[in-house]
Amino acid sequence: MNNLLKKSSSKQNISLHQELKAYGKSGCYPFHMPGHKRQLTGFGDPWQLDITEIDGFDNLHHATGILEQLQQQAAELFGSRRSFLLVNGSTCGLLAAISACIPIGGKLLMSRNCHKAVYHALELRSLRPVYLMPERSRLGIMGSLSPDAVEAALDADPEIGAVLVVSPTYDGVVSDIRAIAALSHSRGIPLIVDEAHGAHFPLSSHFPASALRCGADVVVESLHKTLPAFTQTAVLHVNSDLVSEDAVRRFLGIYQTSSPSYLLMASADCCLQLIAREGPKRFGELRTRLDTFYQEMSRLSYMECLKPLDTFAWDDSKILLSGQRLGLSGPSLARLLREHYRLEMEMASGHYVLALSSLMDTEEGFQRLYEACAEIERQFSLNPTPVLADMIDRSDIYRLPMAACSIAGAMQQPCRTIPLEEAAGQVSQEYLYLYPPGIPLIVPGEYIYPDLLSLILELRAADLELNGLSDMTNQRINIVIS
Amino acid sequence: MNNLLKKSSSKQNISLHQELKAYGKSGCYPFHMPGHKRQLTGFGDPWQLDITEIDGFDNLHHATGILEQLQQQAAELFGSRRSFLLVNGSTCGLLAAISACIPIGGKLLMSRNCHKAVYHALELRSLRPVYLMPERSRLGIMGSLSPDAVEAALDADPEIGAVLVVSPTYDGVVSDIRAIAALSHSRGIPLIVDEAHGAHFPLSSHFPASALRCGADVVVESLHKTLPAFTQTAVLHVNSDLVSEDAVRRFLGIYQTSSPSYLLMASADCCLQLIAREGPKRFGELRTRLDTFYQEMSRLSYMECLKPLDTFAWDDSKILLSGQRLGLSGPSLARLLREHYRLEMEMASGHYVLALSSLMDTEEGFQRLYEACAEIERQFSLNPTPVLADMIDRSDIYRLPMAACSIAGAMQQPCRTIPLEEAAGQVSQEYLYLYPPGIPLIVPGEYIYPDLLSLILELRAADLELNGLSDMTNQRINIVIS
Repeated sequence: MNNLLKKSSSKQNISLHQELKAYGKSGCYPFHMPGHKRQLTGFGDPWQLDITEIDGFDNLHHATGILEQLQQQAAELFGSRRSFLLVNGSTCGLLAAISACIPIGGKLLMSRNCHKAVYHALELRSLRPVYLMPERSRLGIMGSLSPDAVEAALDADPEIGAVLVVSPTYDGVVSDIRAIAALSHSRGIPLIVDEAHGAHFPLSSHFPASALRCGADVVVESLHKTLPAFTQTAVLHVNSDLVSEDAVRRFLGIYQTSSPSYLLMASADCCLQLIAREGPKRFGELRTRLDTFYQEMSRLSYMECLKPLDTFAWDDSKILLSGQRLGLSGPSLARLLREHYRLEMEMASGHYVLALSSLMDTEEGFQRLYEACAEIERQFSLNPTPVLADMIDRSDIYRLPMAACSIAGAMQQPCRTIPLEEAAGQVSQEYLYLYPPGIPLIVPGEYIYPDLLSLILELRAADLELNGLSDMTNQRINIVIS
Repeated sequence: MNNLLKKSSSKQNISLHQELKAYGKSGCYPFHMPGHKRQLTGFGDPWQLDITEIDGFDNLHHATGILEQLQQQAAELFGSRRSFLLVNGSTCGLLAAISACIPIGGKLLMSRNCHKAVYHALELRSLRPVYLMPERSRLGIMGSLSPDAVEAALDADPEIGAVLVVSPTYDGVVSDIRAIAALSHSRGIPLIVDEAHGAHFPLSSHFPASALRCGADVVVESLHKTLPAFTQTAVLHVNSDLVSEDAVRRFLGIYQTSSPSYLLMASADCCLQLIAREGPKRFGELRTRLDTFYQEMSRLSYMECLKPLDTFAWDDSKILLSGQRLGLSGPSLARLLREHYRLEMEMASGHYVLALSSLMDTEEGFQRLYEACAEIERQFSLNPTPVLADMIDRSDIYRLPMAACSIAGAMQQPCRTIPLEEAAGQVSQEYLYLYPPGIPLIVPGEYIYPDLLSLILELRAADLELNGLSDMTNQRINIVIS
């Protein structure tokens, strides 16, 4: 690969900046992050706006001026007691929230479908995880986390120091945060909610209730995923006496650069101003467009919008489009939409694609998506293909393998590198996940069960994007030498 | 403070974005970071360029396409075997370099004048530091780290697993990296160099030799400090068999967001393209402008450019301006330059200000700085003031206090909060540093000696910016309860 790249680079230097400019003008419609959907203008040339902490422009790590005011505006808008602006994504928010809530070596009750940052926090702080598996919905979509399961786990283990839940998930599945918060609080411990994909919840009544409103103690939200801010911006809310704001601030000072980008922060400012000014109107329009879109789609016979079953609630701004009844897998449908209709999806799963919508989407965008689906249906239903019975289903892929040791423990041990196919029965020293969304299939320190490995190899063959191994090119995995 | 802010915010919402636009047009000339000095244009509206990891745009954490090519261009330009592009500043580069070079609990030989990120790495990885104090130059400017001191420390402690040096410092002081690298390598351990302030070294022969050329194993450089890239961008070079590239990549995956900003990365692309195209010409011009400026300044009688004494080498693109012979302290001079001449400095120390220059500075910028100095001299020398004998000198401020416990150990213990003035003899649970540059005066776990505390309180009274305490507003410090 390196040689190939070097060869092509000697021919011509492709410039990332130029490619981005070309893509911006390509007419490709983004049903993906960031949530601004290229609908804003007037930011100004960033070379003129990019400064450092000079007089009058405050310091994010000890904010008392204009940045503190921005954070107070965020707190007011989102309905939190205290909000911290983040420039290293929800990633640093999750690391800081967990670090601030549990001492080194403590126990964290967490849903297994967490972002890898949560696993990284386990490693950095030598935490002991107690995993809970969410209910499984059909087609590999993880369901809600059951409050009963949380209660049973808390009853069984009084050492648990905090609870962490992801809600909504990448697919939009929401858990009963109110019930889980009440259970946590009855034990005197805080609930952290990874609401990275639900920053719009606190801002509109057209979507499920926000974790903040449901009593969560710390909530981490990406500004760029569903709202109009630059990629890499996020916000962390502390809304509780169970969590020390000072500790959160201290850890954010560790996990974030000491030179935060004023461009990223200014985009967060633009986002808050726009929401304050036009939020209700735009969220209302999004609701109408979604309702119209789902109605139109319901009249099609083959192309369909999936809905997760039996979930506590669902954020339907995350559109799960499937062409499975036409024999189209997720990756095939995504390719078709990209190449023939200039519509770029957020993610392709085995059976469906994820089209991410936001308050910045246009009527035209939704119309293009519907018309593409209608035309695909017309074309492919001429030669009706049976439903793909053998299509890979991700339902079974998420397990709770037994751990031989902790993540940090596994990382400190000697290892050897073997082909992934030969790893059955070994203890992994690496993560393996499907990206997006990046939920681990295997965590360092865990046994690689043969049946799980078989499923993983099937996924790989089905063109889904496995990731996490340090040697993805040759598909080799580091295993702990016992 | 909160109430004040709330009051003012209820009157009017100051927008960070609007303030940045206004500042960009204010005519204030930046002798501070970022190194692009607002001299570039044509980036395009960032709302149109900000995307996520869609097809064709690679993934920074597992780069194989356009981002890998960018990283290879960086490696070629800087003269490294392998370069990683960073979007969370040199901060994440230092965290990752240290984490990759030493196992948990290991020993790091480090100069005491390191950036706080190095101390954070000590905490995160439970490392045991062996501190070396650089030679002290006059006026509080830390000197070079002596290779003899490194050798003695390595001889005394065979457990040391890696060496870390900052070179150049914030003030431009360079250490003998070639000698220190040779000493490290003779023990089979890697040398990490924090070259955050010297990213221009590998790109031009007009400045001291780069750490990469001198044999350092891992080098971390900020792109935004002295080169034309957006704030928060940096690069980490691995140029050695003593350090695992996979381990570095893995830790960068922990300390950096899973949604890296394409805007930040595109600015790094612009930076590399500009250097490749115009680097030699522009660095030549910078050299000429610096030489002319120093020559002109040498003809003044009171205003002076300081030079650190007895250092191994010095980066004179960092201009140390002093008005001490006119009775002007650093903060007074900075204020004067800002308010009367629209020249913004990077930093004010007790005796001097730091004017940061780069290859993007203009002839006019240097001319304005010289003329301001000449005019200040004319005005203030009418009423000659004796040299301020009682002006605070930072020389004595950096010490090596005894530690009662490790940083991580101190953080896990119960604490109480007391006024800073009353903290003599206690064990600190907080950092205390002057910002910039952010070198700790006190580190968690260390005893607060009475004479050091007196000096710190003098600095505070002299208007230098103390920082680090969680309660800076009330100047209270958390101490460990013994």
